[in-house]
Order: sequence, then structure tokens, then C-alpha cells
Amino acid sequence: MAINTKVQADHNAPPITRMLAEFAIQHPSQGWDQAVEDQAHRTLANWLGCAIGASSHDSVQAALAAAQVLDPAPQAALMGRTERVDMANAALINGISSHTFDFDDTHLKTIIHPAGPIASALLPLAERLGSSGRAVIDALVIGVEVSCRVGNCMYPHHYDRGWHITGTTGMIGAAAACSRLLGLTVDQTQMALGIAASQPVGLREQFGSMTKPFHPGAAAKNGLMSALLAQKGFTASKRALEAPRGLIQAISDKHDWAEITEGLGTRWEAALNTYKPFACGIVIHPSIDGCVQLRNVHQLQAEDIASVTLKVHSLVIELTGKKTPQLGLEGKFSVYHSCAAGIIYGRAGEHEYADACVQDPRVITLRDKITAVVDDTISEASADVTIQTTDGRTLHVFVEHAIGSLERPMSAEQLKAKFTDQAAAEIGDEKAEAAWSAAMSLAASANIQPLLKAVTR
Amino acid sequence: MAINTKVQADHNAPPITRMLAEFAIQHPSQGWDQAVEDQAHRTLANWLGCAIGASSHDSVQAALAAAQVLDPAPQAALMGRTERVDMANAALINGISSHTFDFDDTHLKTIIHPAGPIASALLPLAERLGSSGRAVIDALVIGVEVSCRVGNCMYPHHYDRGWHITGTTGMIGAAAACSRLLGLTVDQTQMALGIAASQPVGLREQFGSMTKPFHPGAAAKNGLMSALLAQKGFTASKRALEAPRGLIQAISDKHDWAEITEGLGTRWEAALNTYKPFACGIVIHPSIDGCVQLRNVHQLQAEDIASVTLKVHSLVIELTGKKTPQLGLEGKFSVYHSCAAGIIYGRAGEHEYADACVQDPRVITLRDKITAVVDDTISEASADVTIQTTDGRTLHVFVEHAIGSLERPMSAEQLKAKFTDQAAAEIGDEKAEAAWSAAMSLAASANIQPLLKAVTR
Repeated sequence: MAINTKVQADHNAPPITRMLAEFAIQHPSQGWDQAVEDQAHRTLANWLGCAIGASSHDSVQAALAAAQVLDPAPQAALMGRTERVDMANAALINGISSHTFDFDDTHLKTIIHPAGPIASALLPLAERLGSSGRAVIDALVIGVEVSCRVGNCMYPHHYDRGWHITGTTGMIGAAAACSRLLGLTVDQTQMALGIAASQPVGLREQFGSMTKPFHPGAAAKNGLMSALLAQKGFTASKRALEAPRGLIQAISDKHDWAEITEGLGTRWEAALNTYKPFACGIVIHPSIDGCVQLRNVHQLQAEDIASVTLKVHSLVIELTGKKTPQLGLEGKFSVYHSCAAGIIYGRAGEHEYADACVQDPRVITLRDKITAVVDDTISEASADVTIQTTDGRTLHVFVEHAIGSLERPMSAEQLKAKFTDQAAAEIGDEKAEAAWSAAMSLAASANIQPLLKAVTR
Repeated sequence: MAINTKVQADHNAPPITRMLAEFAIQHPSQGWDQAVEDQAHRTLANWLGCAIGASSHDSVQAALAAAQVLDPAPQAALMGRTERVDMANAALINGISSHTFDFDDTHLKTIIHPAGPIASALLPLAERLGSSGRAVIDALVIGVEVSCRVGNCMYPHHYDRGWHITGTTGMIGAAAACSRLLGLTVDQTQMALGIAASQPVGLREQFGSMTKPFHPGAAAKNGLMSALLAQKGFTASKRALEAPRGLIQAISDKHDWAEITEGLGTRWEAALNTYKPFACGIVIHPSIDGCVQLRNVHQLQAEDIASVTLKVHSLVIELTGKKTPQLGLEGKFSVYHSCAAGIIYGRAGEHEYADACVQDPRVITLRDKITAVVDDTISEASADVTIQTTDGRTLHVFVEHAIGSLERPMSAEQLKAKFTDQAAAEIGDEKAEAAWSAAMSLAASANIQPLLKAVTR
């Protein structure tokens, strides 16, 4: 039992809650350069592919079954499905769906998955309001920016402490985005951010269970409802984010306010989003990339391999050190399984995280030949991979930046291929094509109906 | 900016999540002595009076308006109202209502208000399930016990840190209570507690705004939905409460596991609930009690008073040190206003926390004559009150335990008078009488319909 009852409070924080409310409402439509605009569409399309891809998963079925106990009004579409539920439950369920395969977007500075809470909250609301595609993209950029800046302010202490930062910043971003779409006043938005501040969602202990994807879903729902409450006159502290007993100081010993205030509206965290080529935690990607590179260059089969040695940052083991995963979801938190699957199949998509693949004796045999060695001189973004073959060769590659990183982004074709792989299996090729086009050109659309028509069954 | 990125983790916690799930499901019906049974009925009745009393408040109107945007199914009653909403929103709104006047119950060891999250979640579910009164009382005891024990484990660090402990333990208790009422298995209940663990609600920074009563309401809703999710097969970590990155270690540096495990099922925190005689934060009660005692003994008028000096524990100033409250809600966090109202009116009920009373020049004049001096040799449960009169008398009283404390509990008549004062104004004398009787004898009732008939309009 550790006791530390006195926590040092910072009474001199700038008025973050107010500043973010002003930014959310007053920043002009498309008040950013083309790179941000493009990234917003990629963010949306990638989120959509993930949400459709997992739409038949047990996590989505269970959440939908629970929502249906409430006999919800058929207000809003669920990605990849026929059922309709009320806006709040649509935000929850689409958020769960989009993060179930752990295949969504990543803001690498914080490991936040920005789209889940924001897009999942916005689409049901936009459907209900009849919002323009332009308004949705504007709100998406605003929401992602708010979440990521709040995350930057608290990272890494907040994350180290055990919070799942996507769900503990996402409700703030979702509240900002929904306030924007609802056309709230700055005062109302300040209240919405305040109401959301009391509702962080997410613990890292949940990784490997359905509650992990629940986090962005619940953050989306909480953000949406916070905006609706504020619209109806509900009140909160005006300093709910920054006060000594506000969210940020309660939830993190580190709070660097400049990460929120500096360059707000001119420098864009929303431009720094990335998309996963592999359906697992981002910290494993350099290792998988290295294994796949060696496999392809040397045309390796599983049986050719005597041993694999990974030199990686300690965080890789901390987050994904499961040696003997039993289920697909656990496989996502096993660098060993991921690299074994990468070597055997040349990829680590959702198929490679099915229960059957994690339990496949051929994969298990190779997995048990893989060793991970901690080397904190190696960045979290890198990996050093050495393979010993049964015929005595030593193969080596150092991956500085994995595919999918900011330095080595996926091409438009790769992103579309990822989208189609996920979406077509659920809604068919034709709808998948239409959905991709609708998402990638959403800002030009009068409303989101063409998108919704394509993404539902 | 304070940085402390390494938090010491405790890897040796007992299996709290499992133990609480077993307790919630396996403890026998009425497996406690009469004192616990009586306290459960007092807890329910006091909660009900508060929920009815505030049922027309702006906070309830705003929350209901936001819920109605979702076009909710008319599944469940709202205390004191005609409208019906789905179970989840009923839990939210009844929880908001019950805590809006800050007049509800208090577990003094932790300052948890136990009934709000638990009873608010149980009633909508019991209505839907057609549960017996016995089952509701059983679930209420279980839920209160779970919340208070989790609170004991973390108090005071968790509270000092800035969390509003009612909403950050209440979702666990509500999940336990709803799991019990739903008849979930132990395994399912373990999942329900785990899902709830990711959803703490509440920051002390919100005190004085509508988001304070939102905390027990959202905790009720989150607990209820966690149980429904678990029933439908949703999964969470099996160690979501106690793991190094589980709720308790993320949210508090202090974690005394024995507070949860020792005497579970034999020693009852649920027996230690108290009920507020004054409609404000519990730490002001000894000061108000002292002022009212001197007023009554010496028949003082506001104009007789030259000065009032309170000697109190530092927490009193920290929590309720607002010198110049502008609104009724802020008055609840002002020991100065509360004592001034107590001297003038001989009570501090909801009327004394109306905006009009806080803004009354006569109250303000007396308020400004009141000084509070910190003396940490005085317990949080006590106050030393000295009044100087304009005719030169020095009047003094030391209040060791305020009325409403465990040592000086309100009598059944006082509790009923408090209930009736609140409820009759909203639903009339006849229904208030019926509601009191139904609540105080609920365990003997075949279902909760008689109660619901009385408490709605």
C-alpha cells in the first residue's frame, strides 16, 4: 500500500476549457491547408473501413444486444449492419466496431486512436441533423485536434499510469466536434467540454478484452451526450479541464499546457494521423515489418527458421509481451504471435488474428522460436530483427520507421486496399467501392446520405 | 509542470474483482442483521425523498430534454414526474435528481453518497423485470456495500486527488446491484464489474454546477449498462479493479485491499449510512448545527449578531470556502452562507439554498460577519462556534457530532419529516405518505408497483 495523500496542484493553468471552446466554434470552416484536409478524409475512410470490417464481431453483437434491451428509436445507422438504434447507442456501437480489430488510426505522439471517439459521435448526429459533408469534415478536424492536444498535454505520465488515452481524451474531442456540428455557442461548448471532462473512459488493463474497443465507443457516446446536455442548458465547471481538481490534473501528474495552447489553429496535430497496415498495437509494427521484409527478400518458409531475435524498446514487451496467447484478441498483444504470422503469411491483417490462426500449431511452433530482447537505445518506432535459418544463415534488418508511419505512409492505393479488404467481406465489392468514394470526397457532399447508403446493408 | 512518469505498481493484490462478484451473487438474501435491513429501507426512503424533491429542478429538466432528443422508449418511471424514458436514461435522470439538492445520504468514512448510483440504477431495472421488493432491498445492500468498500480502499488519496468518489465508486456498486437483480452468474458479474471499472465519473472541480449531481446519475447508468452488456456476453479484464493498470491503482496512490476483503459479508459498511438534516455538503453540518443551537437557545435574530467565529478542520474551508456565492447551488459550498441561513431561519433545507435566499441582502449582511478559522486539531465531524452579540455577549458551543451523524442519527420522525417536506411539494401529501410507507416496507412488497404509483405524477 503506497500512500501519497497530497498531490501538488497547479493553480496557474491557462483557461484551457475556454480556449478549446472558442477554437471549436470560431475556427473557420476549412481553416487549414490541403494536407490537413486530405488527412481528414483519410482518417474518416480508414475509420469507416475498420467499423465495417468488425461489424459482425461478437463485441458488436453483444453491445447491440444490450442496447436493444432499451428498445432504442431507429435514429441512426450502424456501419455494416441493417439495424438502427438511437444516436447515443449508434455512437457507442460504431466506436466499438471501429476499434475491435485494433486496425484503426494512430496519432503516434500519444498512441491515441483519434477517429474512434470523434467520427463515431459525428456520423449519427450528422445523419439526424442532415449536416453537409463539409460540416462533418470541419467538425472531425476540430475534434481530432482537441483530443490529440489534450493527449499531448498529459502524455506519457497519463498513459504510464494505466489510462487508455484514446478513451480518456476522446470524450473531450467528441464533445468539441458535436458542439461544432450542433452549432452551439462558445459558452455552451465550454459547458459541453466540462460535462465531458467528468467522463473519461478507459484502462490499459482492459487490453485484450472487448472493453478495450468499448473505450472509444463510450467516449463517443459521452461526448455526443455532453454536447446535447449543454445545448439543453446543463452546466459544468468553466475550468473543468485545467483546474487543480479538473480532469487533467486528476488524471495525470504531467500537464504541459503549452501543448494545448501553442499554435492552436495554425499548427495541426490532425495532420499527423497515421493508419495501421497491421491489425494490432502500433508498437509491434516495426518488428512485423522487419520479419515480413526478411521473409519476402529471402523467400522464407516457417520451416526454414531456427530462431528469430528481436531487439526492441521496453514498451514493446510491456504492451505486447504475451508469450502464449490463446485467443485472437490476445494475439494482438503478442509480438511473438504477430511476427510468426507475419513470417508465415506475409501480412498481419485480421485473418492473422483469428482464433484459428493464434491456435494453429504451425504458427505456435514458429512463435516459440522468437525471442525479444529489450534495448532502450532503440526507439519505440524501430526494431532490429535477426533471423537464423536452419541452414545456418544469419539474416538481419534494422527497421527505423515501419510502413504506415509518418515517415513511410501507406500510399492511397494501399489505404484503399486495406479498406476494401475489410469492407467488401461485410457489404460486398460494389458498396465498398461506393463507400470509399463517398468517404474520400465527403467535404463536397451535400449530406452524408450517399455515404450511409453505401455503408449499411 | 510536474513530471512523474513512473508509478509504483502493486502486483500482489488479491482477486478483488472476483471476490466482489462472488459476494454480489452468492451472498444469501437478507444475509445480515436487522440493523442493516432497517438502514437499507432508510437509505431507499431518503433517496426517494431527495429524487422527488428535486424533480422539477433545472438540472432534471435539462437532462430530460437531452434524453428526449434520443426519442427514448417509455420503459421506466422518473421520480416525481409524468414522463417515462428508457431504463438507462431513467437511471441517469433519477440519479441527477437525487443529488441535485445535495441532501442525500452519506457514508461518512468516505463522503460517498451511496444511494444515488445504486438505487437510481435499480429502480428502472426492477420495474422492467417485475422484481420483488425483497430482491431490490437485497441488491441495494449489496451495491452500497461494494461501493463503500471500494471507496474505503482508496480514501483519502483518491478524493484528495480531485475525484468525486460517489461517481468513481458508484458505477461498480451499481453494476454489482444490477447483476444481482438480473440474476447474472458470478462470471458474468465479474465482467460487469470489469466493464464498469473503465467508466468512473466525476471530478470535485464540478462542485457547484449541475455536473456534480450528474456524477451519481451517470454512475447509475454506467453500472446498469455494464450489467446488461455482461449479460449479453461482453467481456472485460478479470482483474479490472485490482490489476496494476486497473481502476484502483490508476485512480489512487492509496489502495488498502483489506478494506475490501476483510469481513466481507459479515461486517457491513451498508449499516453505516447517514442522512443529511441540511441540504449541503456534510462537512458544514457541525457548523450549521452549532449556529442553529445557539440561535435557538438564545433566541437570536440576525440583527443581534456582531460576529460569528467558526473553528473548523481545513477540509471545511477547502470544500465549502466560497465567500461570496451568487447562486443557490454555490451556496451549498459556502460555510458562510449556510451558517447565516441557519441563524436566520433555524434550518438549512432546500429553501435556504434557493437563489433568492443566497441573494437576500439580510443573509448577505450576516454572512459577511462570519469568519472561519482553520484548526486541524478539530475533527472534520466537529465545529467550534462562537457568536459575539451586538450587546456584548459571547456565546459558545462545541459540536462534537452534528445532528444526522452516526452518533446523533435523525429519528424516524425526523427522517419522515424531511421526506415529506421534499416530496409533498412535488407530488402532494397523499402520495408522499403512500411513497414513504411503500419505501419503508419495500422488502415485504411483491413488486415495486405500489411504490412507483405513489412517486410519479
